[in-house]
Amino acid sequence: GRKVLIVYAHQEPKSLNGSLKRVAVEELSKQGCSVTVSDLYAMQFEPRATRNDIVGCLHNSEEFNYGVETWEAYKRGGLSSDLIEEQKKVQEADLLIFQFPLYWFSMPAIMKGWMDRVLVQGFAHEFPNCYDSGLLKNKLALFSFTTGGSREMYAKGGISGDIRYLLWPMQHGIMHFCGVKVLAPHICFAPEYVSEEKRKEMLTAWAQRLKTLWKEEPINCSPEWYFK
Amino acid sequence: GRKVLIVYAHQEPKSLNGSLKRVAVEELSKQGCSVTVSDLYAMQFEPRATRNDIVGCLHNSEEFNYGVETWEAYKRGGLSSDLIEEQKKVQEADLLIFQFPLYWFSMPAIMKGWMDRVLVQGFAHEFPNCYDSGLLKNKLALFSFTTGGSREMYAKGGISGDIRYLLWPMQHGIMHFCGVKVLAPHICFAPEYVSEEKRKEMLTAWAQRLKTLWKEEPINCSPEWYFK
Repeated sequence: GRKVLIVYAHQEPKSLNGSLKRVAVEELSKQGCSVTVSDLYAMQFEPRATRNDIVGCLHNSEEFNYGVETWEAYKRGGLSSDLIEEQKKVQEADLLIFQFPLYWFSMPAIMKGWMDRVLVQGFAHEFPNCYDSGLLKNKLALFSFTTGGSREMYAKGGISGDIRYLLWPMQHGIMHFCGVKVLAPHICFAPEYVSEEKRKEMLTAWAQRLKTLWKEEPINCSPEWYFK
Repeated sequence: GRKVLIVYAHQEPKSLNGSLKRVAVEELSKQGCSVTVSDLYAMQFEPRATRNDIVGCLHNSEEFNYGVETWEAYKRGGLSSDLIEEQKKVQEADLLIFQFPLYWFSMPAIMKGWMDRVLVQGFAHEFPNCYDSGLLKNKLALFSFTTGGSREMYAKGGISGDIRYLLWPMQHGIMHFCGVKVLAPHICFAPEYVSEEKRKEMLTAWAQRLKTLWKEEPINCSPEWYFK
């Protein structure tokens, strides 16, 4: 059975994001996958990158460098336990699903903090092992999110620009950098402004997509896909 | 005298980011500006968007919606005191400078949390008052940051793509959305991999730019600037 980690960032279980997460757990479990959820708000996950992420002495206590210190701490097994826990989940996963409401053309800070703190050098990348040779190669990622703005606002030529423009930092800058292959994003546009029936259709469409997810090919994660 | 708010996110005062922040405070003060700094790590600024941001009763306690609740709370003066404090600083400022190390093609989570929590509906935007008619119009913003990757990696055709690609969510999606005009970014590429002398030149160049900053024209914040 394949292993899936869902990193989930919504405060309200009754929200559409909460339902999308539940649908994924149910559908993927039904397929025989083993599914783990990191429910970031419920965990009160710490988003701030600080000295507290390193247990014991610093490599250089004269001038704190977060990137260097977490790299060194990773190598000696000295990262804080919440990070070790998340890294274990990532290591075991074949697929990472990120489920969140779009906040300011990006993920909520609590999820950005998960990226900043979990994907440390040595674990997820280690120069020159980045992009196609990143340390998390052979894994897949999928960004599944809801928006406030409509599909029209996020069209090419729309006031908010093509939705793909804002996927570049998340899909290329984070996942591709770590060697993870990216499946097409799953986007529910403006669920707050549609009918209850339309929201139910959104859930059904997600469940439907998940049925054949393992047959999908990753996108070609190069500038052409985003800015063609 | 003009008013400047520097939103600063680095853990280490001795870092280049720390020095860039100090240079800005010194140079702008010398010009007669009144400069305020929000030192996010020192403040232990909260990045998570939760129910704690609303004082008193919720508008809808059955199903928590962060956007709706903070909008309602803003209107009745019921946001948490740390947010009211930051909004006051923004309101008074003519120019916002964001000083940070680039983390994963974006700002560190602690600064993303500042955006998520401070720029609430009603204060920074209120449909249809967004983009050119955003509620923070007549203000300027400038993103000043350091990178891990080199200028070559962030060139058009480079492995990390044109650095402008990753500026879209921050400059257009956040600042322009709120009506803020954006000055050209100030980027120090890969300071960790250059000589002490070169780092000093970076500080001098920043001080030099600040001398004539008020004469600069904002960029044309449209897809052409980013993806041409």
